[in-house]
Amino acid sequence: MKLKTLSIAMMTLAVPSLAAADELLQMQKDPNNWVMPAGNYNNQRYSELTQINKDNVKDLNMAWSFSTGVLRGHEGNSLVIGDTMYVHTPFPNLVFALDLNNDGAIKWKYEPKQNYDETVPVMCCDTVNRGLSYGDGKIFLNQADTTLVALDAENGKVVWSDKRDDAKRGATSTGAAFVFKDKVLVGISGGEFGVRGYVQAYDLDGNVKYKAYSTGPDEEMLVDPNKTMSMLKPVGKDSSLKTWQGDQWKIGGGTTWGWYSYDPDLNMFYYGSGNPSTWNPVQRPGDNKWSMSLWGRDLDTGMAKWVYQMTPHDEWDYDGINEVVLVDQKVKGKMHKTAVHFDRNGFGYTMDRVSGELLVAEKFDPAVNWSNGVNLKTGLHDRVAKYSTARNGEDVNTTGICPAALGSKDEQPSAYSPRTGLFYVPTNHVCMDYEPFEVEYVAGQPYVGATLSMYPAPGGTHLGNFIAWDAREGKIVWSNPERFSVWSGALATAADVVFYGTLEGYLKAVDAQTGRELWRFKTPSGVIGNVNTYKHDGKQYISVLSGVGGWAGIGMAIPSLENETDGLGAVGAYKSLSSWTNLGGVLSVFSL
Amino acid sequence: MKLKTLSIAMMTLAVPSLAAADELLQMQKDPNNWVMPAGNYNNQRYSELTQINKDNVKDLNMAWSFSTGVLRGHEGNSLVIGDTMYVHTPFPNLVFALDLNNDGAIKWKYEPKQNYDETVPVMCCDTVNRGLSYGDGKIFLNQADTTLVALDAENGKVVWSDKRDDAKRGATSTGAAFVFKDKVLVGISGGEFGVRGYVQAYDLDGNVKYKAYSTGPDEEMLVDPNKTMSMLKPVGKDSSLKTWQGDQWKIGGGTTWGWYSYDPDLNMFYYGSGNPSTWNPVQRPGDNKWSMSLWGRDLDTGMAKWVYQMTPHDEWDYDGINEVVLVDQKVKGKMHKTAVHFDRNGFGYTMDRVSGELLVAEKFDPAVNWSNGVNLKTGLHDRVAKYSTARNGEDVNTTGICPAALGSKDEQPSAYSPRTGLFYVPTNHVCMDYEPFEVEYVAGQPYVGATLSMYPAPGGTHLGNFIAWDAREGKIVWSNPERFSVWSGALATAADVVFYGTLEGYLKAVDAQTGRELWRFKTPSGVIGNVNTYKHDGKQYISVLSGVGGWAGIGMAIPSLENETDGLGAVGAYKSLSSWTNLGGVLSVFSL
Repeated sequence: MKLKTLSIAMMTLAVPSLAAADELLQMQKDPNNWVMPAGNYNNQRYSELTQINKDNVKDLNMAWSFSTGVLRGHEGNSLVIGDTMYVHTPFPNLVFALDLNNDGAIKWKYEPKQNYDETVPVMCCDTVNRGLSYGDGKIFLNQADTTLVALDAENGKVVWSDKRDDAKRGATSTGAAFVFKDKVLVGISGGEFGVRGYVQAYDLDGNVKYKAYSTGPDEEMLVDPNKTMSMLKPVGKDSSLKTWQGDQWKIGGGTTWGWYSYDPDLNMFYYGSGNPSTWNPVQRPGDNKWSMSLWGRDLDTGMAKWVYQMTPHDEWDYDGINEVVLVDQKVKGKMHKTAVHFDRNGFGYTMDRVSGELLVAEKFDPAVNWSNGVNLKTGLHDRVAKYSTARNGEDVNTTGICPAALGSKDEQPSAYSPRTGLFYVPTNHVCMDYEPFEVEYVAGQPYVGATLSMYPAPGGTHLGNFIAWDAREGKIVWSNPERFSVWSGALATAADVVFYGTLEGYLKAVDAQTGRELWRFKTPSGVIGNVNTYKHDGKQYISVLSGVGGWAGIGMAIPSLENETDGLGAVGAYKSLSSWTNLGGVLSVFSL
Repeated sequence: MKLKTLSIAMMTLAVPSLAAADELLQMQKDPNNWVMPAGNYNNQRYSELTQINKDNVKDLNMAWSFSTGVLRGHEGNSLVIGDTMYVHTPFPNLVFALDLNNDGAIKWKYEPKQNYDETVPVMCCDTVNRGLSYGDGKIFLNQADTTLVALDAENGKVVWSDKRDDAKRGATSTGAAFVFKDKVLVGISGGEFGVRGYVQAYDLDGNVKYKAYSTGPDEEMLVDPNKTMSMLKPVGKDSSLKTWQGDQWKIGGGTTWGWYSYDPDLNMFYYGSGNPSTWNPVQRPGDNKWSMSLWGRDLDTGMAKWVYQMTPHDEWDYDGINEVVLVDQKVKGKMHKTAVHFDRNGFGYTMDRVSGELLVAEKFDPAVNWSNGVNLKTGLHDRVAKYSTARNGEDVNTTGICPAALGSKDEQPSAYSPRTGLFYVPTNHVCMDYEPFEVEYVAGQPYVGATLSMYPAPGGTHLGNFIAWDAREGKIVWSNPERFSVWSGALATAADVVFYGTLEGYLKAVDAQTGRELWRFKTPSGVIGNVNTYKHDGKQYISVLSGVGGWAGIGMAIPSLENETDGLGAVGAYKSLSSWTNLGGVLSVFSL
């Protein structure tokens, strides 16, 4: 790989890290590349490429393919920079640099040394990893064992690495690292093990710049009680501590493993914090702030500009980590810089990303029944009492809650098209029965405290929908039912074609306006990876990782899980998946 | 799957096993099917299908793909019967029935319970399995642990099974089982563990009908000293025992894991026996009959009609198991029912398959140097003394022997086109240094007795050729160099297109007349599987398993092998393979 842009930038700018920042800003504007997990800072997963269009997408064919040599769930997507594609795998988190001039021959391979027995057993929902980032001539990998490693993009050698946390206490990594300007941001997984969530910022040379927790004292959250806003009001002193009993916030979750986004003009970054620990709400009275929250922070300092809690005192694992997509759009007659978020709790949120004002909050799956809606003034839900597992109490099986614990949508990222003004959202259409029970915290042991079983939402047998969503109105524009949860990330293109994968293993192309299916292809294994696109030698390519697994596919990944309540309740609902596909780990690349 | 042919046959014929035999004879004549490992009894791997031809093969595209969920080397190929495709894997030897009406959705899956620790460590050269056979409504699988199992083709349930041998003494199975008429024939692997080779015949209901050893007393070999011929003469009494010292024949190898063929008119079957044990020739003086031999036997009784030893007193592991292809052709002016065999020792043999007369024996790789040629009258080689490791003695490194131990060709089966009259042969172009040492026989322990290192034949860097061979003359017609050994089986079609795979992972189509490349596609992993073809709903498909491994790919399969002499000498020569491909296990299916 020749990083010509970088070389030029380094000669013309005095400060290397700012040169790298400038390079990254330029690279993501070139649609031939796919230089970060979502393709761009704003998480839109939108490409300007138009060679593949509505008319000719039916002629799409596989160009080449590449086995990663690893089975289990393949989330995330490749990066493409110039002539090189970078591909990652689930644990053991191999990284390959593939030569696009040579049908994907291997330029280099990185193989971390990680302790399987320490790490894999504490990864709650398969051994997934959500991919790589690029910056400053380095490829950043967030290893399962929480090591953040910077690899030389040219040769795969380790430039620096930092073991950030300890799997012995249940802390692992599944999310990608994100390079924004001159920082590398990285979160933590382990909400099912009582891990207290945080985001860490490194500079590009491996120095930690700040660490911001989701719970606890203001100074550890990088929250200013007078300046950090929530629903347009300062959060006030001890905004988190006041919502927990005693020291529960120390094992209170709020992990941070989702898709981060960045607005270079505001110099703010955005992400969600996850479920409070334990899943048993009876054991943790209070709102459990700031679990289940969206955050807008200053990139340079990490200070929280605003925070909004979507599900106070969560009772169902409606983990708030899903992606935050940055779109400038007119809502209720007024232009806003918005942040759009499809939450596990089934509501699509449109926020003003400057102020944190809540603009729209509506159900993106009509099956959602735990809340009648959100009061836009208070930000609070009108909860339906009979689905409250806290109210029903421990050891009571509360039935028929929609959505199920894996949410109306999990990590599978949506795409946005500025041409149609619509979001394309892979969703789950799944409900559950949920029975909380008392659990004692032991470091490194599951701290779940609930058993559950999942099943299709009432009135049908399908477990997913792929929908188009208008975030200005909070309305579904079209909805395509899918047999299983749509656990693949979407891609929208300027040719008004939208791509996504299915758990059976199909890669599909649909009409961005109508949802009409234009093309499908059966890839080797179920798709939980995200679709991306790039151009090489004048030809547009579509690429996707196959490899069934993740939470919905956990029964495939670990066949010994057989009960409804194993696999955190997913096994029963997704049992028939094994009639459709098989474990795998293959990158498939398509072109006309 | 509806086996209509079978149902009708069973109603009209009195004897079920003969009805099944008739069904199988009919099914293999229908080019829409691929009903046995080589497609037909004669091992020609030739298809009458012509939809894909020289002009349009460039437009071939992947139609669908299927991950087997298993890594390591995938040898063999799928079977296609009606609407169903049957796919096997390496250890643990899964079997899938895939629905061709539904993009390969899984109809049923069979998962054997086998002891990994007992079986896998004694599989000398990766955990390969060469595939399935069909007969009498059953799918036959020869499991690694030597269990022969008959599965109901409709639902995958075990109809019968027999544990034939014991991995604790090093006996394993890698070869396919073969259904010929009313018999299931199955051999044994373990020549590197002193296993004495044999072929077993079962009836279709699981009763053993006979067992014929490669070495030992006449009655255990099913050899009649007065009637079994070798080079047109009866072999005489104790033909094997006389060629071994003492009881060495009991641990003398001659295993039988190759591709069997059958002539229904002669009611004879054909196969080769493997290397004598140990690899150290000094420890086993004599010709070591009937290791390294081709056999023609009566199917009903198992009695040997003829036998021919290609490499008496083997000194280099020139294992004689390679396929025997049955072709009727004119040799030296006279029509013969011939049996053609490309031996590891580098010679292509054309035999009269009725009498066992040797008609032609010529080098199919010009690099072969251990022998100056074969005397057609005696069948003996004119050996080149300096390459004789026996003569050089133990603990002497004999250098520059061509071919290497994996032969000018290993199990990768050739194809024959009756249209061109040519054989299409995947070959190795590899030489070696070889040092024998004394080894003591211990049951279940390696009984190899040699270290070796392999490298490209002199004058080049390529490790393989794909050649066209005229077996009437014993001449190469064209030869395509390949970077690595061609370890994939070939397919020839009536459209004069020939297909094969490469260790880098390419599937290639070439012109049967000239060898000119017409098309290539990069599959997910290195190809050591065999290409086949079938027609479904009026469309011709090409199918192949990717999954690097086997002997040449052992360094990929077991990365801890790092030395030249590990992996039976293959690791060094094939080290750069890891720059091209990765472990995998994916079926790829192509169509226009």
